Amino acid sequence: MTRTIEFWYEFASTYSYPAAMRADRAAAEHGVQVVWRPFLLGVIFRYMGWTTSPFNEHPAKGAYMWRDMERICAKQGLDFGRPSPFPQNGLNAARVAMALPNDARGAFSRAVYEGQFAQGRDISDPQFLMDALAQIGQDASAVWDTAMSDANKTALRDQTAQAQTLGIFGAPTWRTHDGELFWGNDRLQDALEWMDTVPV
Amino acid sequence: MTRTIEFWYEFASTYSYPAAMRADRAAAEHGVQVVWRPFLLGVIFRYMGWTTSPFNEHPAKGAYMWRDMERICAKQGLDFGRPSPFPQNGLNAARVAMALPNDARGAFSRAVYEGQFAQGRDISDPQFLMDALAQIGQDASAVWDTAMSDANKTALRDQTAQAQTLGIFGAPTWRTHDGELFWGNDRLQDALEWMDTVPV
Repeated sequence: MTRTIEFWYEFASTYSYPAAMRADRAAAEHGVQVVWRPFLLGVIFRYMGWTTSPFNEHPAKGAYMWRDMERICAKQGLDFGRPSPFPQNGLNAARVAMALPNDARGAFSRAVYEGQFAQGRDISDPQFLMDALAQIGQDASAVWDTAMSDANKTALRDQTAQAQTLGIFGAPTWRTHDGELFWGNDRLQDALEWMDTVPV
Repeated sequence: MTRTIEFWYEFASTYSYPAAMRADRAAAEHGVQVVWRPFLLGVIFRYMGWTTSPFNEHPAKGAYMWRDMERICAKQGLDFGRPSPFPQNGLNAARVAMALPNDARGAFSRAVYEGQFAQGRDISDPQFLMDALAQIGQDASAVWDTAMSDANKTALRDQTAQAQTLGIFGAPTWRTHDGELFWGNDRLQDALEWMDTVPV
């Protein structure tokens, strides 16, 4: 049985970008498969009393994060520019991701992150998302219709509620097969090493 | 010339404990010396609008941190128990640390962290701090008198103001010889690897 790690991510989250770009590759090195779990971090932030990103709320924290992202992306060989506005509205992207099977979800999510952080695209734009779907070989119109269905919207709401129930408060968050949470792009390696020590 | 890394820490900070316990050793492996820089994170938190630790403010974040500390300390071979109350009042400890030269400051700080997180001691207790000073071979009364002097209190206030000027908003924070900040216990290795790529 292939062991799996859950990757809980938010499309507008900066640190989710380098995480998404290497998650499948890093996990595969440990014989682990990534289960891509998009959710709406903004909903959880509102429960925490925040109306915007803590990186906007606290200037020192924001300045640090932008510099840190430059360093991390350079080290990982990723192009990086600041999205404007920040944070972007990731609702449409999350709905589309929910409508895809896991493999396509990973490919689609990487395309959205590259558009947002390497190409300066607006990820709420339906045309951008349709193009990303076509780029990964999907039937864009069919997926879009599924994405905007009531059932799919409910599925995304439920997934966000599940994130909150699991105690997730930030993105990216890694959840191992034995239910441990590791918060942050920089903790993927820790999560995978943890999994190596725990029987399936 | 020996390269140095600044270790900005707060005595009540949980993640500063594993950081303090390995900082000198990890840095030495890169030929780097640690400059110990205690400051008062609570002062900076108040500027950010927080009246207590964000781990108390946000239950999910707090629950995660306590579990994460258990894992980190187990991995590093450190005993760990939750201080009560949390956060502790680290003002006296920070004043004493400021009154010591750098080498003794490291040894004293490790003793205070062990007392707090491994032995359940109250780190605001002057007797505990005097014992820690004696334990590392210092003249406890003499250091205490210096620690409580107006000049030393001002020096700690100035160091806290300097932390804020540098853009520090959490602990531990590592600052490299070329002025880069790395926030978090888990970023020490990144900071040291960064230093290896930058000429002195």
